[in-house]
Amino acid sequence: MMNYKEILENIYKDIQPYSKTGEQAGYIPALSKVNPDQFGMCLCTIDGCDYAIEGADVRFSIQSISKVFALAMSLSVMGEDLWSRVGKEPSGTAFNSLVQLEAENGIPRNPFMNAGALVVTDILLSVLENPEDDFLAFVRAVSGSDDIGYNVEVASSERETGYLNAAIANLLKYHGSIKGDVEQVLHFYFLMCSVEMSCRELAKAFLAFADHNNRFCYSGVSLTSSQVKRMNAVMQTCGFYDEAGEFSYLVGLPGKSGVGGGIVAIYPLRYSVAVWSPRLNAKGNSVMGMKALELLTTETKESIF
Amino acid sequence: MMNYKEILENIYKDIQPYSKTGEQAGYIPALSKVNPDQFGMCLCTIDGCDYAIEGADVRFSIQSISKVFALAMSLSVMGEDLWSRVGKEPSGTAFNSLVQLEAENGIPRNPFMNAGALVVTDILLSVLENPEDDFLAFVRAVSGSDDIGYNVEVASSERETGYLNAAIANLLKYHGSIKGDVEQVLHFYFLMCSVEMSCRELAKAFLAFADHNNRFCYSGVSLTSSQVKRMNAVMQTCGFYDEAGEFSYLVGLPGKSGVGGGIVAIYPLRYSVAVWSPRLNAKGNSVMGMKALELLTTETKESIF
Amino acid sequence: MMNYKEILENIYKDIQPYSKTGEQAGYIPALSKVNPDQFGMCLCTIDGCDYAIEGADVRFSIQSISKVFALAMSLSVMGEDLWSRVGKEPSGTAFNSLVQLEAENGIPRNPFMNAGALVVTDILLSVLENPEDDFLAFVRAVSGSDDIGYNVEVASSERETGYLNAAIANLLKYHGSIKGDVEQVLHFYFLMCSVEMSCRELAKAFLAFADHNNRFCYSGVSLTSSQVKRMNAVMQTCGFYDEAGEFSYLVGLPGKSGVGGGIVAIYPLRYSVAVWSPRLNAKGNSVMGMKALELLTTETKESIF
Amino acid sequence: MMNYKEILENIYKDIQPYSKTGEQAGYIPALSKVNPDQFGMCLCTIDGCDYAIEGADVRFSIQSISKVFALAMSLSVMGEDLWSRVGKEPSGTAFNSLVQLEAENGIPRNPFMNAGALVVTDILLSVLENPEDDFLAFVRAVSGSDDIGYNVEVASSERETGYLNAAIANLLKYHGSIKGDVEQVLHFYFLMCSVEMSCRELAKAFLAFADHNNRFCYSGVSLTSSQVKRMNAVMQTCGFYDEAGEFSYLVGLPGKSGVGGGIVAIYPLRYSVAVWSPRLNAKGNSVMGMKALELLTTETKESIF
Repeated sequence: MMNYKEILENIYKDIQPYSKTGEQAGYIPALSKVNPDQFGMCLCTIDGCDYAIEGADVRFSIQSISKVFALAMSLSVMGEDLWSRVGKEPSGTAFNSLVQLEAENGIPRNPFMNAGALVVTDILLSVLENPEDDFLAFVRAVSGSDDIGYNVEVASSERETGYLNAAIANLLKYHGSIKGDVEQVLHFYFLMCSVEMSCRELAKAFLAFADHNNRFCYSGVSLTSSQVKRMNAVMQTCGFYDEAGEFSYLVGLPGKSGVGGGIVAIYPLRYSVAVWSPRLNAKGNSVMGMKALELLTTETKESIF
Repeated sequence: MMNYKEILENIYKDIQPYSKTGEQAGYIPALSKVNPDQFGMCLCTIDGCDYAIEGADVRFSIQSISKVFALAMSLSVMGEDLWSRVGKEPSGTAFNSLVQLEAENGIPRNPFMNAGALVVTDILLSVLENPEDDFLAFVRAVSGSDDIGYNVEVASSERETGYLNAAIANLLKYHGSIKGDVEQVLHFYFLMCSVEMSCRELAKAFLAFADHNNRFCYSGVSLTSSQVKRMNAVMQTCGFYDEAGEFSYLVGLPGKSGVGGGIVAIYPLRYSVAVWSPRLNAKGNSVMGMKALELLTTETKESIF
Repeated sequence: MMNYKEILENIYKDIQPYSKTGEQAGYIPALSKVNPDQFGMCLCTIDGCDYAIEGADVRFSIQSISKVFALAMSLSVMGEDLWSRVGKEPSGTAFNSLVQLEAENGIPRNPFMNAGALVVTDILLSVLENPEDDFLAFVRAVSGSDDIGYNVEVASSERETGYLNAAIANLLKYHGSIKGDVEQVLHFYFLMCSVEMSCRELAKAFLAFADHNNRFCYSGVSLTSSQVKRMNAVMQTCGFYDEAGEFSYLVGLPGKSGVGGGIVAIYPLRYSVAVWSPRLNAKGNSVMGMKALELLTTETKESIF
Repeated sequence: MMNYKEILENIYKDIQPYSKTGEQAGYIPALSKVNPDQFGMCLCTIDGCDYAIEGADVRFSIQSISKVFALAMSLSVMGEDLWSRVGKEPSGTAFNSLVQLEAENGIPRNPFMNAGALVVTDILLSVLENPEDDFLAFVRAVSGSDDIGYNVEVASSERETGYLNAAIANLLKYHGSIKGDVEQVLHFYFLMCSVEMSCRELAKAFLAFADHNNRFCYSGVSLTSSQVKRMNAVMQTCGFYDEAGEFSYLVGLPGKSGVGGGIVAIYPLRYSVAVWSPRLNAKGNSVMGMKALELLTTETKESIF
């Protein structure tokens, strides 16, 4: 039996040399005001234990981590048909590249690059009756926290300056990959990104993906064991923008990061773990978060490989 | 305890509908003469059992699977310095694309796309005293078969028509990513690809990657447990050309395929499995091989996710 | 002295076999309703003669030909500084490609591809007091027709379905290449494209570019002789989307085409010529228009080469 | 009547401030030894006058200017069929890019980018009985100099280090765009590039392109007036690598440059002009050469626009 509490505390000490490395995301005005010198981490095992250190209960903007929740919802409704609208291959280019889209007729390579997430958003808008309420209800159910909410100010702030995402959404619409209204898609996309959760809440939510032998069914979103495992596979190959290979190499767990500085990873049938620190590396992933997870699998000698 | 023998036999029955789907690689003259209607499969567990069906002992051209052996040798000699010469990110484009190379100044994205394998070949030529002998010695040692050899005819056949690889090698030389002689690199590259092994031999060889708690040391090639796990991670994200995401999604195991129709996959700390059938899909991977491995993890409900 | 009247009439007979080849632009709803079986042509010499045949006085949507007027206005105000905002090299890709923009940090290759024209539009909006009025006043003055106007219905129709241009404009804004409001830029861009002119009016307007020994000064837009010649050079290398080389090869005159089916060309110090027919080839240029101009320079044995 | 002699002499004075700007081509060992501080210029009118200044009779490596001679030969033999093997559109990317080739199935965009010139070379090898002799005979005939020759040392030097061209040639072979032997194509390509001529000889040779009302027939290479004019058009749109638009804008004449520092331009039905100075700008064109030609058309107020 691992003493995860002690391991997390040792990791926190060991990563202190990186505490001033990197900058928080500057291109989202509301996020650039966050105090960059924060850190939280929480690990939840499938037998029900939580190991939390530092700011594990401080909420932050989950940003792209929301794409996992959106994917789960769309997979629950669409099943395998989903993959006719979006691929599941790593993109091999920066997460926001339009080049690939243009080359491949508007079908995004995977649901975690922005283009793919916009297509998933379009799907949710077309199949859900109350998309904004339904999404929040699912996130609250899967994490067990009833007061998780959108940060409308952050969402508006992103929409106002989100020219690149607007370019991508319009290009998708041009290719017929978005069926609905471009503005509505962008609005809902940024809203989902603006959800605020703590490390503890994220770890609890992702425990559902780690614990795939148990039934995945939350607020009407239900996935088979096989579907959950396949979502984990997509996280593994596509969850870290242009750094998926690096994360796989150093950490060896499926996961997803966001520019708010959060990273969630799962060790299937063992645990989920969330870490948060706002300073990012050049690829847009949390510096201390990456380091903490690398140390976690190195110390425990546990990874999926 | 799984009855792998019975599982493999059932799989073989279930994939019969695909027995005429796809074509063998036509661009390598010597390979296009192979009888396409062959199939073999062998699973080796880390506790020492072999489960073999059909043509599990028929040797075939391992082609790109050789890149795993080459990577192991170069990682053994260079350690982490290797990654300054070649990346470890999925490429996101067809395995032979020159576009990425040109865009990224001649540093290949990973060691399993042709460009990356040519750089690894260049490294082996510069660090080994007798590269051709040393490579064969390693492959023989790790698979436990003393009579594995090169097929010089296949290698020559490939070199004569290998214009695309010659283009890539020259482009790498132009960018300074190949230090040695272009012709020697191409010669050794094609020679390694021409190695012929059976499914049983491949499964035995890859057991060394699955069983990373045991010391990896064969004919002077030694890797730490951490290095083996990291090689497994690179196989997971980059081992299947432009279909890495699909394989990860459907099969959920790290592995490597070759255009000879072979695929090897590993379930870390459990087993290795090799399958072979010459008919390929549009992405260059064995049709029946992919299907067999998908059924294997579906039936057993075992995968790394 | 050429008998241009007879030459034009013969050309019209000779191109009849092409009268049903190609389709009018279908992606702009308002344009797709135009009767495709129309043709007009007018040649104006610098010594003041007009030679008009068929529907030379029928007005049509000038579309991208408007980019020449916009470029003249922006060059008049900005002088050579203009070229820090937009290049003057042929694009080598389809006229609407986003790939080049992304690769070159948002600086469009030339003012005639859509991205470049959007930057020119942004410039006009920032330097002109009444951009919509000023543009129309210039076009009226240079063509000598006081009742030329915008077709607001066509402009609205284009804006509503102009997702690709919206994508380009947002990408330019993201790169800082558009300073003003994206929606305003798109609105004014489509408005300029919607201007309706006849072949006679276009030929008269472009005579000002052919006759560069005379002062170019119309409604406050003034260019030096050198600037006019340089604009002609840009038309030569960039005026025909992805078919600039073909037009240069077959016709040998600088010019500009539009998806409304119009083409204007100039023979410096000799004449200007406008031709119109709505059916387009695969590259977006008028089939009969291209053919008519090829025959014109072949028959007269006159071209700039 | 222009006093070209005086104009050239004044130009030479005016461009002195640029005499130390740029570097000669360093990637071709034999060329990097040339004294960079040389300059020559010669203008030949179609009425038979020569105006030469400075080192107008010093021979230098014509490099890519040879592509015009090769194109003339292949056009003479193949006629319009030539254009099924190579396009005539500007490339829009650096002259040596492989990206375009890969995207467009191995058909080079134009005969002046390296890929296109390699295809033209392949054509010459397949249609000429004694390609090396025939090429030299044509160049000697069109320039009226019987002792023009190859510089075998320069050709060998280029071949030995010409990895990028070797990459391009192999990629063309892979796509079936080169029919013959890759090594023979490269050998002949570099040999043609190694031809040494003086500005006076180049100007005389290109006078044949300017004077298209006279019969073009030299050592068996014959072109119609229309073909010559079309070659001039291709020079205009594609003759200056990634700077075709800039040259067209600043100089306004069709022409061709080489990395040896030579540039030839023609004013159809008036004159041809050759200039040479080894120091190159970032795009690979002679700094003083570009400047001298810009001043020539500015001073004389003569250009094709």
